Amino acid sequence: MPTRQGRYTLRLDSCPSIAAYASVVGKKESEGPLARYFDMICTDTTMGEETWEKAESRLQKDAVNKALAKAQLAPTDMDYVFAGDLLNQCISSTYGLRDLGVPLVGLFGACSTMAESLCMGSVFVDSGAASNCICVTSSHFCSAERQFRYPLEYGGLRTPSSQWTVTGAGSAIVSQSSVAPYVRAVTVGKIQDMGITDTNNMGAAMAPAAADTLVTYFTDTNTSPDRYDLILTGDLGEVGSQLLVELLKRDGYDVSGRHSDCGLLIYDTETQDVNAGGSGCGCSASVLCSYILTRISEGALNNVLFVATGALMSPTSLQQGESIPGIAHLVYLADSKWS
Amino acid sequence: MPTRQGRYTLRLDSCPSIAAYASVVGKKESEGPLARYFDMICTDTTMGEETWEKAESRLQKDAVNKALAKAQLAPTDMDYVFAGDLLNQCISSTYGLRDLGVPLVGLFGACSTMAESLCMGSVFVDSGAASNCICVTSSHFCSAERQFRYPLEYGGLRTPSSQWTVTGAGSAIVSQSSVAPYVRAVTVGKIQDMGITDTNNMGAAMAPAAADTLVTYFTDTNTSPDRYDLILTGDLGEVGSQLLVELLKRDGYDVSGRHSDCGLLIYDTETQDVNAGGSGCGCSASVLCSYILTRISEGALNNVLFVATGALMSPTSLQQGESIPGIAHLVYLADSKWS
Repeated sequence: MPTRQGRYTLRLDSCPSIAAYASVVGKKESEGPLARYFDMICTDTTMGEETWEKAESRLQKDAVNKALAKAQLAPTDMDYVFAGDLLNQCISSTYGLRDLGVPLVGLFGACSTMAESLCMGSVFVDSGAASNCICVTSSHFCSAERQFRYPLEYGGLRTPSSQWTVTGAGSAIVSQSSVAPYVRAVTVGKIQDMGITDTNNMGAAMAPAAADTLVTYFTDTNTSPDRYDLILTGDLGEVGSQLLVELLKRDGYDVSGRHSDCGLLIYDTETQDVNAGGSGCGCSASVLCSYILTRISEGALNNVLFVATGALMSPTSLQQGESIPGIAHLVYLADSKWS
Repeated sequence: MPTRQGRYTLRLDSCPSIAAYASVVGKKESEGPLARYFDMICTDTTMGEETWEKAESRLQKDAVNKALAKAQLAPTDMDYVFAGDLLNQCISSTYGLRDLGVPLVGLFGACSTMAESLCMGSVFVDSGAASNCICVTSSHFCSAERQFRYPLEYGGLRTPSSQWTVTGAGSAIVSQSSVAPYVRAVTVGKIQDMGITDTNNMGAAMAPAAADTLVTYFTDTNTSPDRYDLILTGDLGEVGSQLLVELLKRDGYDVSGRHSDCGLLIYDTETQDVNAGGSGCGCSASVLCSYILTRISEGALNNVLFVATGALMSPTSLQQGESIPGIAHLVYLADSKWS
């Protein structure tokens, strides 16, 4: 049963289990430092499909099927799929999951979607509303570029603070079973908007949301950063990560040495020409559902706060002079249940 | 506690209450048969804002504030807001709810969003994960036209099967309190795709999803249509409604005489020049959160199945030759708790 801890955090008493997880990535991601942790690598990032959007749908489909295979479960064993993405009207999820035959709860949380889906799936399992559910999201560099920025053929130059959209998907099966990793608690975030309007600096737009959700969580649970081995943000990149550390320091929390960011883990930022790091729904999804969950399963990490961040804007809202609201959702993952 | 009934339906044992609800609509909707049930009517559909997208955000903001005022509750009393819409990257919800300060679970269910948000909010309240939460969605004729169809200035002609996007928003506060209406059960739907590619015939694309969710619900609960006073679909319009009745008849369920559709209730289809009826996330939201919930509160309706339907497409997916997947989520509303 979910129990409220503090004002906004839910302690999940049964500790839902992540029974299996899978990641599928593209060529550039396979050249980064986490290559050996991914389940599937597609050096042809069209995935054999006719369009980039269909390729992205395929990433979600493959990530789901791979996780089901690893768990030795069928789609019919799943009670719900919690999914979303950043394409207009979330078409990667819809078309990628169309043939699955599982009740779909469509989500929109921009790049925070992996954490949002885990929050929902874990609450459903902990409350008995579901026995098994799948959480999945994706992004694709080529579909994101043409929707949010410029046609690829234009070859637009990128600013140093800009981030590189990950081609990848991650999926996790949340279940009532008893294998690590476990979800011990979740905190759903509130929108934070500090007035940032620079679409090439999403890290700065999202850092205040990550800081707010972390401070909420520490306050609610009366814990401090040193209780955790790793505080892992979604895709703040270099600029946003520095900002987060500073914002938290101002609030009395020192996360330096414990903080890492999926956007900085997935690429070698020195050699891979990605400027401030990776981004996109698939960034935190593919890093979490490979390297991180494996490290927790092995017991190499014991207590991890996964805080994926999203920038809730659209090209239209920016053209209309709006700033970029950020959001961050937190999932507390551990290698053991509550004792 | 949510208890599984059959394969896909959740019986909500505590029967979460809809403590308050509100609707905000535009000029055309105020000229329809439900006019006197709406809380706010804006004859200037710009809502005093500079753009149609900002006007739509304002609809959500006003609907939320009105429901809070009716419940005599503050945003700080709310544990979650479940919200989404059909604009790219759900910007009506983001910007409309930016200043609310309540944890946001962003949803994407196209025109099924009102039912999807009530499913999530009710499960959260029934499981104890929330004491109070708000469910809200919106649509605006002018923002929808330019995003999904043609610029308004173009004056494109409409086919007889096309529907008219409702300018409106509806919001409901789901809570542990004890006032009717109550949510007794929910069924989250699965994607159905019968290969329809005509963007001017959304009703036909969505009807199979409504039929599938209703058959699932009747099977899960071992009930038949005559158990309910009203089976209310979201926005199938004239074409989709006829199809639904036929599809259900083929499966052995006769809903004629008990079925109604929000897209047919909100306008006078004879005189208001809306072709096959109303549509958009705001259609089922504003009809439910006015006329229908009022009729249940008064005891004039005792058992209502609310089945909002969504077409999970985008202009891009249609341009790429994809068909239109539909989805439908069901909420069982009653004027009393489970006895």
